[in-house]
Amino acid sequence: MNNKKEQIILAERPTGTPDKNTFKLVETDSKQPEKGEVLIRTLYVSVDPYMRGRMIDAPSYVAPFELNAVIDGGAIGEVVESKSDQFQSGDVVIGGYGWQTYYTAKENEIRKIDKDIAPISTHLGILGMTGLTAYFGLLEIGKPKEGETVVISGAAGAVGSIVGQIAKIKGAHVVGIAGSDEKIQYLKEELHFDDAVNYKTTANLENDLAKACPNGIDVYFDNVGGEISDAVHAHLNKFARMPICGAISSYNLEGEDIGPRVQTTLIKKSAVMQGFTLGDFADRFPEGTVALAEWLQEGKLKYQETIKEGFENIPDAFLDLFEGNNIGKLLVKVAELPQ
Amino acid sequence: MNNKKEQIILAERPTGTPDKNTFKLVETDSKQPEKGEVLIRTLYVSVDPYMRGRMIDAPSYVAPFELNAVIDGGAIGEVVESKSDQFQSGDVVIGGYGWQTYYTAKENEIRKIDKDIAPISTHLGILGMTGLTAYFGLLEIGKPKEGETVVISGAAGAVGSIVGQIAKIKGAHVVGIAGSDEKIQYLKEELHFDDAVNYKTTANLENDLAKACPNGIDVYFDNVGGEISDAVHAHLNKFARMPICGAISSYNLEGEDIGPRVQTTLIKKSAVMQGFTLGDFADRFPEGTVALAEWLQEGKLKYQETIKEGFENIPDAFLDLFEGNNIGKLLVKVAELPQ
Repeated sequence: MNNKKEQIILAERPTGTPDKNTFKLVETDSKQPEKGEVLIRTLYVSVDPYMRGRMIDAPSYVAPFELNAVIDGGAIGEVVESKSDQFQSGDVVIGGYGWQTYYTAKENEIRKIDKDIAPISTHLGILGMTGLTAYFGLLEIGKPKEGETVVISGAAGAVGSIVGQIAKIKGAHVVGIAGSDEKIQYLKEELHFDDAVNYKTTANLENDLAKACPNGIDVYFDNVGGEISDAVHAHLNKFARMPICGAISSYNLEGEDIGPRVQTTLIKKSAVMQGFTLGDFADRFPEGTVALAEWLQEGKLKYQETIKEGFENIPDAFLDLFEGNNIGKLLVKVAELPQ
Repeated sequence: MNNKKEQIILAERPTGTPDKNTFKLVETDSKQPEKGEVLIRTLYVSVDPYMRGRMIDAPSYVAPFELNAVIDGGAIGEVVESKSDQFQSGDVVIGGYGWQTYYTAKENEIRKIDKDIAPISTHLGILGMTGLTAYFGLLEIGKPKEGETVVISGAAGAVGSIVGQIAKIKGAHVVGIAGSDEKIQYLKEELHFDDAVNYKTTANLENDLAKACPNGIDVYFDNVGGEISDAVHAHLNKFARMPICGAISSYNLEGEDIGPRVQTTLIKKSAVMQGFTLGDFADRFPEGTVALAEWLQEGKLKYQETIKEGFENIPDAFLDLFEGNNIGKLLVKVAELPQ
């Protein structure tokens, strides 16, 4: 086996938008697996907006990345050497070991995935954290009822595109907000959203939302925060529910994220804003995974992936997230699964 | 009987802080009661911060006041003439008929109150809307558990002072925020709050809150919004709950209410902000009233009223609300109940 591996480490904590200096690609020795361990060759790594928050050294829902340590996050790999009874060479496994070409994992750090139900990359997306985030955020906090109006920001993103489809399954009127005509077309034609608004080209987002939501907004699944959310708040119905999943508009701000305070709106509408992270629902992952896999197999859920190629391109892929250029889940393919 | 009555009407919609020109005292004819009606002589009227919101012509949870019409709101009076089988002269009744010395009410607009369980004025306060607002907002949204920390802004106000006492009954560590040393002393010595912070004299509200809340903040009952709430948000614990009851800091702003956006904080803490108004719990008022009356009779709840005298002083009393000079419920006594 190859005794060397590549890692991407956090070279410096970004202020404002991360750039190439934020990361550094290093070569290091790969640890030989001992009893109860396996050596994994990475096939895909996940690249997610929440990672931006871990790059600064402040308390959050997950610990900050350490300086000069590998960036961790969801990854899928193939077991190439096993000293464990639970895994054998050729198994495809998922774990949170991050941006490195090889990893020596303890048994309890990884879990086997089924190569047959869907392409393996879906376990980092629609059948993984992404799908579960959409599932629990929408259904447990948003609680859409048939005929209600659900608005989603970042609607063409990994989470947003699943949220909208689940809302359609539940019988809601679904409106997406996204930032390119290609995304708008994707939402309306491929995912059958009832309407979609391009926040970059609209003359007036508030007016366009009013047209797209003639009965007001009952659920707002918020992936972006900022001015887009301010515009949505103008159309909330009484008892509106707002799962707050992300605030990508604020992640790279150098100053404070300043805008209209929400208290008065919340009182007038008896509305709820509830922040969450997927870990809040950890005891219910099996239920969510089963539901998502069923909808996927029944053809009720579609997904799109943007897959970049090459380990060394991971930082660029991450930086692309903040350009808003991707549709669906963003992954980097590091190696091919042998046939 | 007297055929004339006095009313205070909305003379103009205020921009910014209301002033004397907002109101006008007029004399008008009192309508003779017909079958099913009673004539009421007003004894007390309630003066509340939420009325500010009704003075502007914008959609809210209650309809705006009409220009040149009487300001309505909670009032208690004595039946002086009855053409109804359900009421007789001398009955003390409560209704929402507002700022007028007499009112001719239909039977279904008023309800009789028990003169014996507590002073009649308490039905506009701790046994009325004020107490119920505290009860449902804290228990249904805040859901304090024993040993958790509950922080209340506007803590010496009508609602806040009851919220803190109910939180103590539930075994919480209770910290109030208020704006004078007299109020701080009242909260700590009379109402047995565990601690209280004077936001007007503190050198650093965030630091003082950190000292008063060594285990962080689990429930924040928000009556004020604005910068005080920004400071509280810095100390939220994971899964914090925030009933949003009022935003008095913003009611008289001429411009927008601008400050740090809350989305990132909500996500990091999996925290909830939920606006509400008392009407959301209308089907459960009897339960709340019973609980409050029991605690009051057991001596577990104390209350304080600031009672101004004289019908013509109602506008001044209302304007005083925004000066933050009052402790507890603010009422105006319009006439004496005959012995």
